[in-house]
Amino acid sequence: MLFDRILSASKRVANYIGPTPVFTSGTVDKLTGRNVFFKAENLQKTGSFKIRGALNAIILLKENKVQTNGVVTHSTGNHGSGLACAAQMVGVPCTVVVPHTTASVKIDAIRWYGADVVFCEPTQQSRKETCERVSTEQNLSFVPAYDDYDVMAGQGTIGVEMCEQIPDLDAVLVMTSGGGLIAGIATAIKGIKPNVKVYAVEPEGKDLQRSLESGERMWVGPPRTLDTVADATPTQQVGQLTWPIVRDLVEKQVFTVKDDEIISAMKFTWTRLKLVVEAAGAAPVAAVLSEQMRALDPSLKNVGVVLCGGNVNIDRLPW
Amino acid sequence: MLFDRILSASKRVANYIGPTPVFTSGTVDKLTGRNVFFKAENLQKTGSFKIRGALNAIILLKENKVQTNGVVTHSTGNHGSGLACAAQMVGVPCTVVVPHTTASVKIDAIRWYGADVVFCEPTQQSRKETCERVSTEQNLSFVPAYDDYDVMAGQGTIGVEMCEQIPDLDAVLVMTSGGGLIAGIATAIKGIKPNVKVYAVEPEGKDLQRSLESGERMWVGPPRTLDTVADATPTQQVGQLTWPIVRDLVEKQVFTVKDDEIISAMKFTWTRLKLVVEAAGAAPVAAVLSEQMRALDPSLKNVGVVLCGGNVNIDRLPW
Repeated sequence: MLFDRILSASKRVANYIGPTPVFTSGTVDKLTGRNVFFKAENLQKTGSFKIRGALNAIILLKENKVQTNGVVTHSTGNHGSGLACAAQMVGVPCTVVVPHTTASVKIDAIRWYGADVVFCEPTQQSRKETCERVSTEQNLSFVPAYDDYDVMAGQGTIGVEMCEQIPDLDAVLVMTSGGGLIAGIATAIKGIKPNVKVYAVEPEGKDLQRSLESGERMWVGPPRTLDTVADATPTQQVGQLTWPIVRDLVEKQVFTVKDDEIISAMKFTWTRLKLVVEAAGAAPVAAVLSEQMRALDPSLKNVGVVLCGGNVNIDRLPW
Repeated sequence: MLFDRILSASKRVANYIGPTPVFTSGTVDKLTGRNVFFKAENLQKTGSFKIRGALNAIILLKENKVQTNGVVTHSTGNHGSGLACAAQMVGVPCTVVVPHTTASVKIDAIRWYGADVVFCEPTQQSRKETCERVSTEQNLSFVPAYDDYDVMAGQGTIGVEMCEQIPDLDAVLVMTSGGGLIAGIATAIKGIKPNVKVYAVEPEGKDLQRSLESGERMWVGPPRTLDTVADATPTQQVGQLTWPIVRDLVEKQVFTVKDDEIISAMKFTWTRLKLVVEAAGAAPVAAVLSEQMRALDPSLKNVGVVLCGGNVNIDRLPW
């Protein structure tokens, strides 16, 4: 069961990374009329939650004595540097496949953690094919970005920490892309405190609510890349393995946030909380400050907001 | 004795504000070859350490049953909003005198905490005179920004926390303007751990080292306002009451940081630590990353850096 895998993941990753802090803000509480708790995964090693799933997957490879020469993935950002850092910590070689169009600052981050970088064309097909080729040629184990139970279990450790850190938690808001983060957190929280409501936050164009309401994956055609300022969460369709978990555990009401709301929330988080969050990390802040939130059941008093990442290009801010 | 006043201030302010967290960074430790501990006063209520001294001074007015209708100060920034917020917490009326040239965002912050704003001309003389007039007319107690033992005692509570939070502290770096912050911290730390070295960080043009080496206030003429990107610390001369403390407790070797170094350190702190610091808050980060630091005694292994504030105008960044 995923919940049990999350509990063992918590013990496993605790040898490498500590829990991230939770912050509150008198201003936000005043503005929202609730008690809001910000889970600062932007302060996580490598600047996003991704290292949790990566660490869990890599340590399990070692525990299970898998015959492999290391790990490989394809990514242009947070998952790539998360995996690279996790591999370096555990002492396992790592290769990351990146499109040749990737910003050099992101490639530098991956190399900073000692990983090899292999370039491919900037298409999903080229990313997958190159990754498979490298994996086969060098006998490297593929660690997916989200559609994998070990990765989900690692991300779920955030939910365990939130239940410990936030008193009388009533609801959480989680940014959703491929769904690994929210599937893990929802499983953890529902396992510990079944009455807590888990809400998905999404960029415009994802249309998750339609699928949640119908109970089926309503996306048609090949996965699109969303045109959103939240460039860490461009995945349109929730994954094949994450989807049933999201469908079963997440509230049908989705918080859809527009680019300008995300940018305002970024500025708000930077200037009021003094925390640097990337656009995807600011999206749930936009949600908690929204009219939609104001209309939500006032008995949902204590609300957790996951600041999922803080990796930004400081010289190219979106305002 | 100031040290005893700091210890009682710690108990006094703890009813209103919690200790700020301390952060570490694997990247910074690698770059510096030391263990660096960042004391996050940017996360303090009102976004700077100033509320500590303000709270201590205001609570003491109440404890000592001083016959007063409230408090007043002159400020364009952090001390003004710190005093306003502290007064609101304690339930005391507050007036802040500000030059009419002050940015509206700063005036809004002062008013947000319920203080009255009185405008004056943008000169030191007009600030002082207006403040004295308001103080006399309305029987308000003047709370200085730094040259006051109760204010220094409040700022010194940071030093008490650092001694508790940082194991085997060897040295601390503190930004210096009027000297209230470093006088308080140095007194606290030397009182608890006499062997810890306290270093001043300053913007160019302050020339504190010359005074420290000669043991006398070497500044001539009326106090100048320094032309520095660290606009929260423009005071050229250390105060009359803070000076003897700084002279006796602070290392003679001063870390002077240039504007471009401060701006680089701001970007570094924002992108690597994911913490928003203002220029004055980034100055000690510039110092800890400097060549001068590299040349410092390697036995000073555990170094505390005070991130003194995080109030920035996000739409007018200095890069």
